[in-house]
Amino acid sequence: MKLNQLIGSIADAGRELLNRNRQEVRSIEELCADLSSSKGEAMGTALAQEVVSSYEKMHDTEKVAFFQLLLTRYSSDPETIIRCADAYKLKGDLASFQALSVSVEGPRKDLLRSFNMAPTGTATLVKMRKDLNRLSAEHTELKAVDFDFLYLLKSWFNRGFLTLETINWRTPAHILEKLIAYEAVHEMQGWDDLRRRLADDRRCFAFFHPALDDEPLIFVQVALVNGIAGNVQELLAEEDEQTRNEPFDTAIFYSISNCQEGLKGISFGNFLIKQVVMELRKEFPQLKRFATLSPIPGFRRWLDKELKNTDSALIQQEDRVTLRQLQNEVWHTVASYVEQVRPLLMRLCTHYLYHVKRGEQPLDPVERFHLGNGARIERLNWLADMSPNGLSQSAGMLVNYCYELDSVEENHEAYINDNTIVVSKEIQKAVKEIKVGN
Amino acid sequence: MKLNQLIGSIADAGRELLNRNRQEVRSIEELCADLSSSKGEAMGTALAQEVVSSYEKMHDTEKVAFFQLLLTRYSSDPETIIRCADAYKLKGDLASFQALSVSVEGPRKDLLRSFNMAPTGTATLVKMRKDLNRLSAEHTELKAVDFDFLYLLKSWFNRGFLTLETINWRTPAHILEKLIAYEAVHEMQGWDDLRRRLADDRRCFAFFHPALDDEPLIFVQVALVNGIAGNVQELLAEEDEQTRNEPFDTAIFYSISNCQEGLKGISFGNFLIKQVVMELRKEFPQLKRFATLSPIPGFRRWLDKELKNTDSALIQQEDRVTLRQLQNEVWHTVASYVEQVRPLLMRLCTHYLYHVKRGEQPLDPVERFHLGNGARIERLNWLADMSPNGLSQSAGMLVNYCYELDSVEENHEAYINDNTIVVSKEIQKAVKEIKVGN
Amino acid sequence: MKLNQLIGSIADAGRELLNRNRQEVRSIEELCADLSSSKGEAMGTALAQEVVSSYEKMHDTEKVAFFQLLLTRYSSDPETIIRCADAYKLKGDLASFQALSVSVEGPRKDLLRSFNMAPTGTATLVKMRKDLNRLSAEHTELKAVDFDFLYLLKSWFNRGFLTLETINWRTPAHILEKLIAYEAVHEMQGWDDLRRRLADDRRCFAFFHPALDDEPLIFVQVALVNGIAGNVQELLAEEDEQTRNEPFDTAIFYSISNCQEGLKGISFGNFLIKQVVMELRKEFPQLKRFATLSPIPGFRRWLDKELKNTDSALIQQEDRVTLRQLQNEVWHTVASYVEQVRPLLMRLCTHYLYHVKRGEQPLDPVERFHLGNGARIERLNWLADMSPNGLSQSAGMLVNYCYELDSVEENHEAYINDNTIVVSKEIQKAVKEIKVGN
Amino acid sequence: MKLNQLIGSIADAGRELLNRNRQEVRSIEELCADLSSSKGEAMGTALAQEVVSSYEKMHDTEKVAFFQLLLTRYSSDPETIIRCADAYKLKGDLASFQALSVSVEGPRKDLLRSFNMAPTGTATLVKMRKDLNRLSAEHTELKAVDFDFLYLLKSWFNRGFLTLETINWRTPAHILEKLIAYEAVHEMQGWDDLRRRLADDRRCFAFFHPALDDEPLIFVQVALVNGIAGNVQELLAEEDEQTRNEPFDTAIFYSISNCQEGLKGISFGNFLIKQVVMELRKEFPQLKRFATLSPIPGFRRWLDKELKNTDSALIQQEDRVTLRQLQNEVWHTVASYVEQVRPLLMRLCTHYLYHVKRGEQPLDPVERFHLGNGARIERLNWLADMSPNGLSQSAGMLVNYCYELDSVEENHEAYINDNTIVVSKEIQKAVKEIKVGN
Repeated sequence: MKLNQLIGSIADAGRELLNRNRQEVRSIEELCADLSSSKGEAMGTALAQEVVSSYEKMHDTEKVAFFQLLLTRYSSDPETIIRCADAYKLKGDLASFQALSVSVEGPRKDLLRSFNMAPTGTATLVKMRKDLNRLSAEHTELKAVDFDFLYLLKSWFNRGFLTLETINWRTPAHILEKLIAYEAVHEMQGWDDLRRRLADDRRCFAFFHPALDDEPLIFVQVALVNGIAGNVQELLAEEDEQTRNEPFDTAIFYSISNCQEGLKGISFGNFLIKQVVMELRKEFPQLKRFATLSPIPGFRRWLDKELKNTDSALIQQEDRVTLRQLQNEVWHTVASYVEQVRPLLMRLCTHYLYHVKRGEQPLDPVERFHLGNGARIERLNWLADMSPNGLSQSAGMLVNYCYELDSVEENHEAYINDNTIVVSKEIQKAVKEIKVGN
Repeated sequence: MKLNQLIGSIADAGRELLNRNRQEVRSIEELCADLSSSKGEAMGTALAQEVVSSYEKMHDTEKVAFFQLLLTRYSSDPETIIRCADAYKLKGDLASFQALSVSVEGPRKDLLRSFNMAPTGTATLVKMRKDLNRLSAEHTELKAVDFDFLYLLKSWFNRGFLTLETINWRTPAHILEKLIAYEAVHEMQGWDDLRRRLADDRRCFAFFHPALDDEPLIFVQVALVNGIAGNVQELLAEEDEQTRNEPFDTAIFYSISNCQEGLKGISFGNFLIKQVVMELRKEFPQLKRFATLSPIPGFRRWLDKELKNTDSALIQQEDRVTLRQLQNEVWHTVASYVEQVRPLLMRLCTHYLYHVKRGEQPLDPVERFHLGNGARIERLNWLADMSPNGLSQSAGMLVNYCYELDSVEENHEAYINDNTIVVSKEIQKAVKEIKVGN
Repeated sequence: MKLNQLIGSIADAGRELLNRNRQEVRSIEELCADLSSSKGEAMGTALAQEVVSSYEKMHDTEKVAFFQLLLTRYSSDPETIIRCADAYKLKGDLASFQALSVSVEGPRKDLLRSFNMAPTGTATLVKMRKDLNRLSAEHTELKAVDFDFLYLLKSWFNRGFLTLETINWRTPAHILEKLIAYEAVHEMQGWDDLRRRLADDRRCFAFFHPALDDEPLIFVQVALVNGIAGNVQELLAEEDEQTRNEPFDTAIFYSISNCQEGLKGISFGNFLIKQVVMELRKEFPQLKRFATLSPIPGFRRWLDKELKNTDSALIQQEDRVTLRQLQNEVWHTVASYVEQVRPLLMRLCTHYLYHVKRGEQPLDPVERFHLGNGARIERLNWLADMSPNGLSQSAGMLVNYCYELDSVEENHEAYINDNTIVVSKEIQKAVKEIKVGN
Repeated sequence: MKLNQLIGSIADAGRELLNRNRQEVRSIEELCADLSSSKGEAMGTALAQEVVSSYEKMHDTEKVAFFQLLLTRYSSDPETIIRCADAYKLKGDLASFQALSVSVEGPRKDLLRSFNMAPTGTATLVKMRKDLNRLSAEHTELKAVDFDFLYLLKSWFNRGFLTLETINWRTPAHILEKLIAYEAVHEMQGWDDLRRRLADDRRCFAFFHPALDDEPLIFVQVALVNGIAGNVQELLAEEDEQTRNEPFDTAIFYSISNCQEGLKGISFGNFLIKQVVMELRKEFPQLKRFATLSPIPGFRRWLDKELKNTDSALIQQEDRVTLRQLQNEVWHTVASYVEQVRPLLMRLCTHYLYHVKRGEQPLDPVERFHLGNGARIERLNWLADMSPNGLSQSAGMLVNYCYELDSVEENHEAYINDNTIVVSKEIQKAVKEIKVGN
């Protein structure tokens, strides 16, 4: 079915639903029509405010109808596009190009932009997109609508509009509670846990957007430590008198969390890490190293698959026996087993990070992110995250990615152009040993 | 010449110029290339900063070359567009639509967006557009580039991102001096003049954008008076003890000035007036009327033309004799002449405002603006602005446009749909008398 | 022993102790001497900073020695006072008065004032006074030093320098955690409890001093409810959907907590309540009543005493039997007993509030505070605070004091001049019934 | 006449005047009485507000009567003082000391403190003292009242409560206009002049008090230059392109102005200079020298006196002839005369600074201030301030005082203890030459 046919069939069903609450207030259908007309200029703020209020009261079925309205009524018109494309082919001048451009752009982006005139318009658009993503799982035709949402939000959440804010114990409580809620990597247990993470030897930074002022977009948690940290439970533990007064030379980025599902697909992490490195260098000139302590989310999933492959050259028969005991949830508490399985898992995980690909890039998503940013793989850490999540993702291992500002550009280029996985000497050595081992 | 041919011929000339300062720093050509590649993601902020610094040092010839680079290298590719259009015509599905969409969008908007990653990126883009507008007078091919600048800035300077700020004597001096510089309607003589306009019986409001925080976008000056004011010199005069303590019931918007040439074509005035009306109603519930005291910039230009039309049914022979003395620069100081010419000019100006059109809309641009916003013409004022500018534009007359929130939408609709010029009873009466007079 | 003799004997012992850490840094004795000399003017800030740092490192024995130094070295000189007093008696002119004034003032106040030049001087002086109060329990001679501390702090924490701040969920966490710590009336269980108390239908206000900017001096918690509230557990319970949207007409001050022990004896509560009443009237013109929900801290202590007085005309023999069961910690859970003892306890508590005195004023300290502020006793509430503390203080009863701005001055005068206890009609009636009962 | 008798006779006259406007509002006499009673506690803020409003409407005669009320009604009671002094002499214990202390303190300080409870109380007290100083020129008995005002304001404007603020072109206009008004050393011509003084190579700092937030207490203007500046007109001249980009190594404090007459006698300058030196060292580690460029206000006054002394050993007969032409107002424009008189005036001024005393300290007040702060006399500058004021005070000479943090304490001690005038080698040499010359 062509897009325009599909759109037609959806339109009729949706219209009825939206008009149900037409009695007292203008229906969202009328509001959108007014906003799209010249009235949008004259009465925009008020109309947009009504859209926002209406949307806040909608249930999912109404939301679907609303998005279908956006799809059916506010998509580009195929016939106009084709007519303009033909004219452009013929003339190729600026006027015909602009006409084509306008026809392709269609009325929906402008409508979405007009919603933004309401006082909480930006927040509502972000919420709409979150809903849209959820609802389009079932209503796949709505993905066409998301194309415009994403285009708009990407343009508006441009790095240049974001402000970096320091989060600490002087930050208002309504922001802090969002950090507790949004922390995605190492779950926070509540206010005491948060307070530890905002102590004097810790730093936390977040990006904010001026039109979403109570909502962090992304935040990163940093530990100032002596030497590269290899265990996250130690970082999260109560500060002890001794370490507090120790000099530190390393900043460990141990958790990066995106906060807004409605901004999925817009990347902030790369900019955040780099600006935080610069902020920290300004505040603490003594810092020598900037490294992450990162999860390896795909390792055990990959390992389980590899174990099913009985022809795998990677895993010897005896290793299979050893690995079988990983099924036991308390394997990590049995010291003798831990020592036995350690070289094997370290070797397999090094292999996973260095050799296992999806297409030409590493399979591991966190690895792809950091290598794409120009980091290098620094060190693999054994028994580094003993939380249930850490054990089930990566058998408790974590990896450090190192950011050296001087080589970030070069690393990035090597990765992008040649798929080079830049690693430290230590990892390089481990990689070579695997080869011998195989 | 087709657009793409034109672009080709410009490209060669420009490239050479841009590369002249290639020795030490990356040329802007390289910087743009890097920003457009995957490096933009990895190193964006730094590259964008270099673009901003480079641009600040450019002379006009280099700027032209830079804009020509944007034209030749970063326009949409006609061949790709045509190929995508053909595919879309054939398939009409979402994928082919999105491919066409991307091809029409072209790489330039994304490049401009990437400039914004620099700390002062937004300000630089606004400056670039100001330069572009100036330079494209001679280099008309650059108007194609402005299409993207305008698209982007319109999206970013969406009403929802603007903040309304009160300007008063507590405002930082570096903002206040910009008001002195930008005041376009009734020139300010300096700080004392400004201070008068920020006194207790005055209000001033401006829109700001968070990424341009020291630069007002537009500001409006309001006088709180008793009854509709008809003379601007009185408003600007020193406050006297008596009037200060008088109760007021009317807010007169006596000056609205746009501040940023680089944002030409993006309209803020309508939103500003309406929000200010709401702010004032909140602060002063006793206010009964909201009206402008506005210039009539096109009246004398039109009158001079009409005088040249010897067949004009509007102007009798004896009137021509009377009007001839308007050439005398001091006509307004001769009381007897002033009284003689008053009914004639008031009649002609009423005619001008009510009947003289450009297409179907009024010829006068200020009138178009306020009627389009939903205001009505309230009253014509004689000897209302005796400044040289006031005399030369409109023989010293000013007009009040009245904003009544309750009828704004209706007025707007009547104006947009039927070209109805909504006027007060007083003006209605004067209009009828002209008809009789003719 | 005369004061000056006492001082002499202390001086020698203390000097030795203070000089122990003289090696590297100037002893606090030297620092004080320098601050008291002309050097104070020239080098004041630096010297004061050293005093602050030294004090922070002191143990209690050193603190005692330091306060003894303040006593022995910086008290007014008795001989000079007597000489000046004699001269004043003889001459009685301004010069002799001022000389006497200076001699009585002595050097200590000036020394304390000079400590304040350090960046955290004010906070340190408040801490010093807290320590001083604690230590002078044993070292009673130090009470002479507190005279000057109190004089100074009273002058500096003048109402005119305090700022009223609204505390809500947007307040920085480091302030909020202090509220949890300082809440003295109804203990907070942690952040969730605090959050409830800062919900939309609650208000919290605190006084701050500009030189102590992270430390509230006093705060009051207010519930906005419908009708006068008579039960504190209900106020502290989770907000339910229904009450949230109910209109409210009454502000209940259910907790007032002083925060700074070092400011004991300086009264803030009266000013706070009155300013908060005015703030709330501005924000919510619909409020009809402002009342406290207050503890009756002295009731059961008094009752126990009265019970020991076997001749008491107040308590009949049968009442004694009834009251004996109050010893049982769970008496309030036995419905039948609760109903039986209710009229008796209500009657006794009304008597306690109305008739029981210390001198000419009520025995109950909370009652003295509110009556002195011009409030009236409004209502006695049964089973109003079932916390262990509420039960042990007042058998679970709480009392409302009502603040009517119009009668506050009159009430205050009646109380101060004639010891009149102003009560509501309801209480008046209950008081009469007691009389009958007796 | 004894103080208490004087007071009695004034009281009757003043009371009548104050009560004249008693009809509608409470007289200030009643207000003060209420504030001094227990009502002050209960109704303080409202009563204090009435005092402030009343005071604002008073004419000078009423103000005198008001201050006389403060004198007659609120002074310490002589009889009580004498009784308490006798008791203290007898007992000498803490209680009798405190009773004496209270009797000497009297009720006036407390009354003044209670005025401060009004929202603008502090500002009003500062205004009152300004008026009091002016009015006590004629009504000398009021000086007794100023004793308490000064005591109180000194305590409240303690260095620890002041905040140092940077003043620049981003400072609100209502503060900046006060700088123009208060500049006492080198008059400002208006906003353009001010702007020059706030340019990038200048700094301006002021002390503020939190209860007087729109009023600077004192400000200092600093020029960042290369080498010690010796001419103030050069510093105030338009910035030229060349000097702007030159590196600077010296901070010149070329103007220090006290702003509040009501705070006369409370010294801020010393603290300001020292804190500004520290701020500047932090911002510009390259700064090597901190020096003033100061007026010599007493030089010509002294010289004129010396010229009248025909026996003066300092001035030779031929010098007298030369100096006679200084009477000519344009002497400084005659190049030949300027060269002739230069060595003579430089020598005499060096003598003035080094040898001319009032008691044991220098006669020149600016010199006393800087030497007392621990500065040294660095250099005498010829033709350094050619303004009318500069010529009439010091024949156009200015002097640099140098602040070296390392020697400030030592210099101060030498000056205070031994009256040593610390000077640079250059001045030392000039001083020796005078001696030879004599």
